[in-house]
Amino acid sequence: MINQDTIVALATPSGAGAIAVIRLSGSDAIRIAEKQFKSVSGKILSKQATHTIHLGHIIDGDRTIDEVLLSIFKNPNSYTGEDVIEISCHGSNYIQQEIIQLFLRQGCRMATAGEFTLRAFLNGKLDLSQAEAVADLISSDNEASHQIAMQQMRGGFSSEIAKLREELLNFASLIELELDFAEEDVEFADRTQFKDLVARITLVLKRLIDSFAVGNVIKNGIPVAIVGEPNVGKSTLLNALLNEERAIVSDIAGTTRDTIEDEISIGGIGFRFIDTAGIRETKDVVESIGIKKTFEKIEQAQVVILLLDAKAFKTESSKFKVEIEKIKNKYPQKPLLVILNKVDEISKNDTEVITTISEDFEKTPVLKLSAKTGEGVDALKEKLLEFVNTGALRNSDTIITNTRHYDSLLKALEEVEKVRFGLETGLSGDLLAIDIRQALYHFGEITGEITSDDLLGNIFANFCIGK
Amino acid sequence: MINQDTIVALATPSGAGAIAVIRLSGSDAIRIAEKQFKSVSGKILSKQATHTIHLGHIIDGDRTIDEVLLSIFKNPNSYTGEDVIEISCHGSNYIQQEIIQLFLRQGCRMATAGEFTLRAFLNGKLDLSQAEAVADLISSDNEASHQIAMQQMRGGFSSEIAKLREELLNFASLIELELDFAEEDVEFADRTQFKDLVARITLVLKRLIDSFAVGNVIKNGIPVAIVGEPNVGKSTLLNALLNEERAIVSDIAGTTRDTIEDEISIGGIGFRFIDTAGIRETKDVVESIGIKKTFEKIEQAQVVILLLDAKAFKTESSKFKVEIEKIKNKYPQKPLLVILNKVDEISKNDTEVITTISEDFEKTPVLKLSAKTGEGVDALKEKLLEFVNTGALRNSDTIITNTRHYDSLLKALEEVEKVRFGLETGLSGDLLAIDIRQALYHFGEITGEITSDDLLGNIFANFCIGK
Repeated sequence: MINQDTIVALATPSGAGAIAVIRLSGSDAIRIAEKQFKSVSGKILSKQATHTIHLGHIIDGDRTIDEVLLSIFKNPNSYTGEDVIEISCHGSNYIQQEIIQLFLRQGCRMATAGEFTLRAFLNGKLDLSQAEAVADLISSDNEASHQIAMQQMRGGFSSEIAKLREELLNFASLIELELDFAEEDVEFADRTQFKDLVARITLVLKRLIDSFAVGNVIKNGIPVAIVGEPNVGKSTLLNALLNEERAIVSDIAGTTRDTIEDEISIGGIGFRFIDTAGIRETKDVVESIGIKKTFEKIEQAQVVILLLDAKAFKTESSKFKVEIEKIKNKYPQKPLLVILNKVDEISKNDTEVITTISEDFEKTPVLKLSAKTGEGVDALKEKLLEFVNTGALRNSDTIITNTRHYDSLLKALEEVEKVRFGLETGLSGDLLAIDIRQALYHFGEITGEITSDDLLGNIFANFCIGK
Repeated sequence: MINQDTIVALATPSGAGAIAVIRLSGSDAIRIAEKQFKSVSGKILSKQATHTIHLGHIIDGDRTIDEVLLSIFKNPNSYTGEDVIEISCHGSNYIQQEIIQLFLRQGCRMATAGEFTLRAFLNGKLDLSQAEAVADLISSDNEASHQIAMQQMRGGFSSEIAKLREELLNFASLIELELDFAEEDVEFADRTQFKDLVARITLVLKRLIDSFAVGNVIKNGIPVAIVGEPNVGKSTLLNALLNEERAIVSDIAGTTRDTIEDEISIGGIGFRFIDTAGIRETKDVVESIGIKKTFEKIEQAQVVILLLDAKAFKTESSKFKVEIEKIKNKYPQKPLLVILNKVDEISKNDTEVITTISEDFEKTPVLKLSAKTGEGVDALKEKLLEFVNTGALRNSDTIITNTRHYDSLLKALEEVEKVRFGLETGLSGDLLAIDIRQALYHFGEITGEITSDDLLGNIFANFCIGK
C-alpha cells in the first residue's frame, strides 16, 4: 500500500437524523483521530485492536464537539485497505460540519466522489466491476436490480470474465512463444483446444451481451404504456397496484418512493407506467395531436395496456375492437393487454356477455378487473410478470446492466470473432497474437486490469461522496 | 433491566447515501441478528465481545440482502443499556427497507420516535433532562445551542438540580421525623441551616430561571428587524453577513443551511433577520398598512437595524432623524442600530460630513458600511454580538432552554418561596413538609425521578425515529 493522504467525508445521507457517520481513510487516519478523540475510559486509540468500537468525545482544544462512538479498522482489514476510522456522531448538520471541519484543519482532505471505493480498487480490495456494483447497489430500488448488483459486487460476473481472460492469456503466451521460434515452425498452442476455447468464449460473451437487454430493463424498470380515456380509472389502477407497496413503505420513515408516482415494483421488478390519452378516431386537430403523442409513448413502451370501461363494453365493443386492432397492427411485436375496468359496476349478466365478446379478441389477453375494489388486480400483476423474461434472473445467471461492460464485451466479441476467423483461415501467429491481445485488452477493461485515469475518473465521479 | 421486546429502526437520515445504519435493541437483539447474519470468517455472533465489529452478509434464507458491518454492544454497555446491534449497510432505500422488513418478520418491532433514548432513560443510562438534550443536540444548528445541549447532555444542569434536591430531601426527612415526635417538641432540622439552604436554592433557581431568556434566544436565534426602504441594500447586506458561512458550508455536500435564507450564525449565535418595509411618513393608505406591519415586526424583534442609504444621508438627514426618533420613542427598550449603507458610492468629503451629522444621534450607534465591498461588515457583526448577553455562555454557566424545565423551575421556586415564608413565620412542621414535598416534586420532574406516561410520551414524541 502506497502512503496515502487521509481523506474525510460524511458517509451517511446529509440532513438531520439520529446519528451520522463520518469516515476517515489514509495513512494518518488513526494518528489524526487519536489527537481529537478522548476515550471515556482513557484508552489510547492507536493501541486498540482493529474492528473495535470506543465511546468518547471529539474534542477541539477545550471544546467538546460531541459524544461519539469511534470504530477503528486497521489496514489491510478495512473497506479501502488503508487505516480507516468511522465516527458515529449525533446527527445534526452542525455537528457533522464541525467534526469534518476539525479534521480538515488537522490535515485531512475532503474526499472526492467515490474516492473511498477508488482506493479500495487501487488497493486490490475490489476489481473494477465490483467497485461499479457498489454504486449500483446504492442506487438499486427493487429486488431484481439489487440482486444483480449484489451478485456483481460479490464477483460473480468478473470472476467468469477473469477466468476466460486467464485461459486466453495462456494461449496468447504460447502463440507468442511460437513467434520466438518462428523459423522452426513449431506449434506450442494446440489449435484444436484453442478453437474450443474461442468457441466457449464466444458463447459466454454472446450470453452476457444478450443479457444486457434484460439487465437494462431490470435496472431501469419496464416501461408500460397505459392507453385509456380520462376517467377510465388509470390513477385508481396505479393506486391499486401500488397499494401493497405503500403499506410496507409507510412503516419506515421518510422513504422517497412515493415521489416516483408512476414507478411500481411488482414481484421485485420495477414497472414504469406511462400515462397516455386514448386513440379513438377524431376529427379534432388538438385530439389528433394527442393521439400522435400516444403512439410516440407506445413506441417507448415494452408492454401496452389498453384500459377500457367495462360499462361501455357491451354497447361500444365494436369501437373497442377497432382500437385493439389499431394497436396490434401498428405494434405487432409489443405485448398488448386489454383491461376491462369497473367490473364492480356492471351486473352479473353483463359480465357474461363481456366474457363472450372478449373471446373474439383471440390471442390478446383480456382481463376483467375493478381497480376500486381490487378484484382482478393480482391477476394483472401476474400477467405483467409473465411479460418479463425473468428466466435468466431466476436461474441466477449473470446479467449485465452496465453500459461500459456491454461496450467492452461487444468489442471483445469482435476481436474474438477475428481470432476465430484467423484460426479457421490459418492466419499467421504474429497476426493472431495482435487480435488476441486486443480481446484481452477489452476483457481487462471490465475487471480493471487495464485502466486509464480518465476511465477511473468517469466511473467514480458517478459515486456519491463518502463512498 | 426488564425483559424488553426488541425494537428496530433506521438510525441515519432517510434517503440514499453511501451507508445507512440500522439499529436493534432489546433482549433478543443478538439472537435475532445472529440468525440473519453470516460472518465472512464464520464467527458466531453471540460469542463475540462487546464493542466489536464484524464483516458479513445479511441473509434471508438463500437470499443475500447485503454485505454489511455489524457492531455488537452487550448490555449494560450500550446506548439503551440493553443488547444493541448496529448494522452498517449500503445506503439504498431498498436495502434499508429489506433489512428492516426482515427483522420485523423475525420478531422485532418498529421503534417509536425516541424509543431508544426512552429505554436509555428507563434503564438509568441518562436522566430525563439529559435525554431531552439528545434531541436538542440533534436539532442544534449553531455553536451556542450546540454547546448548551452538549452541556446538558453531559449532566451539568441536572446534576446541580439533583444535588439541591438531595439536600432538600434530607431536611424534609428530618422535618418529617420531627412530626413523629411532635408531642416532645424536638427540632432535628436545624432551622438556621435550613434557611441557608432555602436561600441558596432560591438563588440557583432564580439564576436558572433568568437564564431561560438567554437560552431561548440562543436556541431559537435572535430576531433582528431590518427596517429599510427597498433598494437600500437589505439582501446585499444579508449576503455579506452570510458570505463567510456559505464558504464553509459549500465544502460539505448537501447541507440544508442555504434554505433558511434569513437565519445567519454570527460568532456561533443564530440571528434571525426579519425583513420589513420603511417607516416614512405617508398619506397613502396601502403604505400606511405597510408601516403598521413594520411596527408589528419590530415588536417581535430583540434588536432593530435601521438601514439607510449613505448617499441620501447628507440631503435627507432630517428625515432620517425623524425615523430614528420614531423608533426610539416607540421602543425605548429595544437596542437600535443605524447603518449607513453604500459608503463606497460617496466621496471621502461626504463621509466626513456624515460623520459629523451622525454624531448628532447620541447614544444611538451609527455604523458606516458597504454591503457590496464588505467594508464595515465585521464591525456590524461585532456590534450584533455586543447586543447579546453571552456572558452566561462564555462563563459556561448553566443555561435553560427547555420550556418544560422552565415551568418546573418556576413552580419549584414558588414552593420554595412558600417554604421560606413558612420558616420565617414559624409555620408548623407538618405544613412545612407539604411545601417541601411539592418543591421536591418539581425538582424531580426535571431530572425524571418523577414522571408520568403522558409526560414521557410528550417528550419522546418529539424525537426522531431511530434515536
